[in-house]
Formats: sequence, C-alpha cells, structure tokens
Amino acid sequence: MLRIHLEVPCRPTESASKVMLAVLNLFPDAELAEGEVITGQVRDLGRFSELLRVQRIRNSAREVLGGSIRGNRMVFHLNKQAALAGKVSFSALSPLGDIFVTVESDDLERVLDQVAPASLRK
Amino acid sequence: MLRIHLEVPCRPTESASKVMLAVLNLFPDAELAEGEVITGQVRDLGRFSELLRVQRIRNSAREVLGGSIRGNRMVFHLNKQAALAGKVSFSALSPLGDIFVTVESDDLERVLDQVAPASLRK
Repeated sequence: MLRIHLEVPCRPTESASKVMLAVLNLFPDAELAEGEVITGQVRDLGRFSELLRVQRIRNSAREVLGGSIRGNRMVFHLNKQAALAGKVSFSALSPLGDIFVTVESDDLERVLDQVAPASLRK
Repeated sequence: MLRIHLEVPCRPTESASKVMLAVLNLFPDAELAEGEVITGQVRDLGRFSELLRVQRIRNSAREVLGGSIRGNRMVFHLNKQAALAGKVSFSALSPLGDIFVTVESDDLERVLDQVAPASLRK
C-alpha cells in the first residue's frame, strides 16, 4: 500500500494554473482538483526522486524525509515557487502555503530507499 | 510636495493582474509598472482614507501610520490578499511580499490628518 496525497493552498492573488504547474513539475502524474486548496493524488515519485539526484540533494533529502516519518506516514513541505522553476526545495511549514505532501505506506523505509537512496560515499 | 510610491513583489505563482487589481482596490489612481516587483506612483489617498473610515480602523491606522514616520517619510505595509478583497489590513514585513508603501512629504502630520483624522471621541 502506497498512498501519496498533496495539498497546496492557492492564495487569492495566485494563479491556480501556475500553482498546478508547480506541482506537476515535481509530480507529473498528479491528479489535481482545483479549489482554495488544490488537492491531488500521486502514484509515482519517479520524477521527484530524479530531481533529488540531478540537484545532488539526495543525502539531505534523505535526512529530511527520514526525519519526517511518524508511524506509517511521511509528511513534508516543498516550496511552491521553487517547484514552479522545476526545483525541489524543502521548506519549513510556512504561511506562504507550500506544497504539503503526505506519503502513507506500510514500508516507508523502502519508499525512502527508492526515492532517496543512501549514497555509498560519505 | 507629496510623493507616494508603491512596491509589490509578484511571486512566480501569482497572477500579475490579480496583484495589480489588489493595489488598485486601495489606490485606484496608481500608475503601475509590471515586473517581478510591481512598482507604482500614486497621487491620491482618498480611497485609502475612505476605506479606513468605512472599516472603522481610523484610530488604529493613525497609530500605525504615525508610528511609521521617519523624517519626511512614512513607510508601511499592507496585506496583499486583504487588498484583493478590497480591505485595508496593515501587516508586519512578511516574506509574502505585501504592498510596500512609501509616502514622502514635507508635512506628514498634515497628510496623516487628512488620511486618518483623529477622532473627537476617545
């Protein structure tokens, strides 16, 4: 069981299409529903994982993601503006309304190993 | 001499037209220039003053505005989202990129008395 859910507040001055594009840059298969809070279901974390590799932030991502595990849930936030530029940037909870991601799985360690594999080198 | 200048960051996910509309709700005569930071010149504070009256926030506005005087400048920030809803809401400097207003005058006390007259009642 792997369930990935997104929530992204869309502020009044924002363009819903730009916000959705930001999400799709990181999660191209997201099925999004428009609203004051844009919500979505994601099945595949391949592109997200690929970006971590390309941006060379796998190790720090592994720390952030690993540290965000509570039981069978992994909850983290991604900067919306960076996402619109096609970049992954983890952010602290902010009133900016970032991309709020919840990953549920019975085996989050495995998900973590797939998304941000531990590097062999220290 | 009265010079009123606006600066409003337009974040990538924002719609420039919505941000400009937010500004024009409070300052209908603003001459705006589009960009990453929308800038503008304003001549008339009539609508702004009228909103303070209608919202019954003249006294608190007078405090905020009076407290924001430094020499011949008055510098304050207005919430962009509230502005889009046609409301004045003073805000602390925030990473949200609020509407940043600078009023320059040789007689700011007079400007203050015009924009947010002191109430007769305590």
